[in-house]
Amino acid sequence: MGRPPLSKDTRLCMSLAARPSNIGTRFHNHLYDVLELDFIYKAFTTTDITAAIGGVRALGIRGCSVSMPFKEDVIALVDEVEASARAINSVNTIVNDDGYLRASNTDYLAVQRLIDEHDLAANDTVLIRGSGGMASAVGAAFRDHGLASGIVIARNRESGRALADRLGYDHATDVGTHVADVIVNVTPIGMAGASEASEQAFDEATIAQAQTVFDVVALPSETPLIQSARAAGVHVVTGAEVIALQAAEQFERYTGVRPTAEQVAEASAISRA
Amino acid sequence: MGRPPLSKDTRLCMSLAARPSNIGTRFHNHLYDVLELDFIYKAFTTTDITAAIGGVRALGIRGCSVSMPFKEDVIALVDEVEASARAINSVNTIVNDDGYLRASNTDYLAVQRLIDEHDLAANDTVLIRGSGGMASAVGAAFRDHGLASGIVIARNRESGRALADRLGYDHATDVGTHVADVIVNVTPIGMAGASEASEQAFDEATIAQAQTVFDVVALPSETPLIQSARAAGVHVVTGAEVIALQAAEQFERYTGVRPTAEQVAEASAISRA
Repeated sequence: MGRPPLSKDTRLCMSLAARPSNIGTRFHNHLYDVLELDFIYKAFTTTDITAAIGGVRALGIRGCSVSMPFKEDVIALVDEVEASARAINSVNTIVNDDGYLRASNTDYLAVQRLIDEHDLAANDTVLIRGSGGMASAVGAAFRDHGLASGIVIARNRESGRALADRLGYDHATDVGTHVADVIVNVTPIGMAGASEASEQAFDEATIAQAQTVFDVVALPSETPLIQSARAAGVHVVTGAEVIALQAAEQFERYTGVRPTAEQVAEASAISRA
Repeated sequence: MGRPPLSKDTRLCMSLAARPSNIGTRFHNHLYDVLELDFIYKAFTTTDITAAIGGVRALGIRGCSVSMPFKEDVIALVDEVEASARAINSVNTIVNDDGYLRASNTDYLAVQRLIDEHDLAANDTVLIRGSGGMASAVGAAFRDHGLASGIVIARNRESGRALADRLGYDHATDVGTHVADVIVNVTPIGMAGASEASEQAFDEATIAQAQTVFDVVALPSETPLIQSARAAGVHVVTGAEVIALQAAEQFERYTGVRPTAEQVAEASAISRA
């Protein structure tokens, strides 16, 4: 078992980020081993995104994951921008077919799929806490599914208002007494785990009145918010589901092979160990 | 033993050729394993050499070996061209130091070192059979060492004359009765090995009158020409020596580590198996 030895025919996939981590490198290479695929994956950084994407095209690098701060800049550098990336003006995945670069956003696609899997209704109301890139992906997937009524909750008035305007939602600087059918945390609150249980993205009253609690924090996936929602008998969607779906989607786009949910979960655990 | 697992800090080296082989990929990766270096090496091809070299720079790819037909084109794309590459207007090695690309020609450097090791005298006369890129490297190293009197023997009148002019040598279309102190084969004659013993780059009489016989054919390194020279008691320089020296030089430029002659020989054997 394992990948074949490196050869001229081995396909290279990569990532571009200002501050690369090892998570993607471990995740993809682990699955190449498990699935015996003739691929390698490595994180890169660059100070010249135009030349870097030109190099991806000219060197036949099969796939390129895109992180901060390049997610918007690469739009002008590819040949095709799929709806998932156009919806939020943000790319996290580029696939290279013989020099033709196609860009998509698998965060958006993952949320879209979760909306289907968890049967969120088009007339559900929404509270989204956060106004960054992932909040934009979540909000756009909601809105594009027909969830037309919502509030973006963000202390940062500028980014909160801008995201709310793009989505056709309202903006508030804190949760206050707002309630909704679907409440989503897209801030880092909860990343510290139970030690920080006193700080939750939404309070108990808001949780109790929701149909679905969605926390995008993936590590730990059992955040205080998710724990409270479970305790209150409210349906939950976890950040681990988002991560797993987006990673599987990206992996399949690069290799043509869809890993199973178990393989993704194992690779994800290994990559974050 | 072996390389560390792939991480964001692993350095990538590569090659660019119109028709990539697996030799370099096997050679370098084998030595990375043996020497436990955090590098990987892979052959690539491209139809856009400008964007490819731009990608090498922007992605921080540590080293790039250059093969046909890019050896001259890359000169305009790098930041510095060392004397070894300027001497023959041909690059086979690019080293990337934080985006600064330095080009050299390790074939030229290998021949230069062999001239020293084998104590060729500056007033020796030379016959070079061949007029391609490697003949140019050999001839330039000879001329730059002071071997000012020589004949380029090439059926192709255009390339033969052009190389002879660049070196300040004469040109002839066949060996005829020409003799010299140093006779060099830079054609593929002899690659078929002993089965083709009847075809030799130089005849017995020419070999017998030489001080040194140099055959650039590396596989097999014991060509009919080398065998005849040994039988005649004439000093020999083999293609295996050229290959080993140029590869060690290139490897050291990429990694900072000089493999031993034995390590290079083993990696070379494995890479051509």
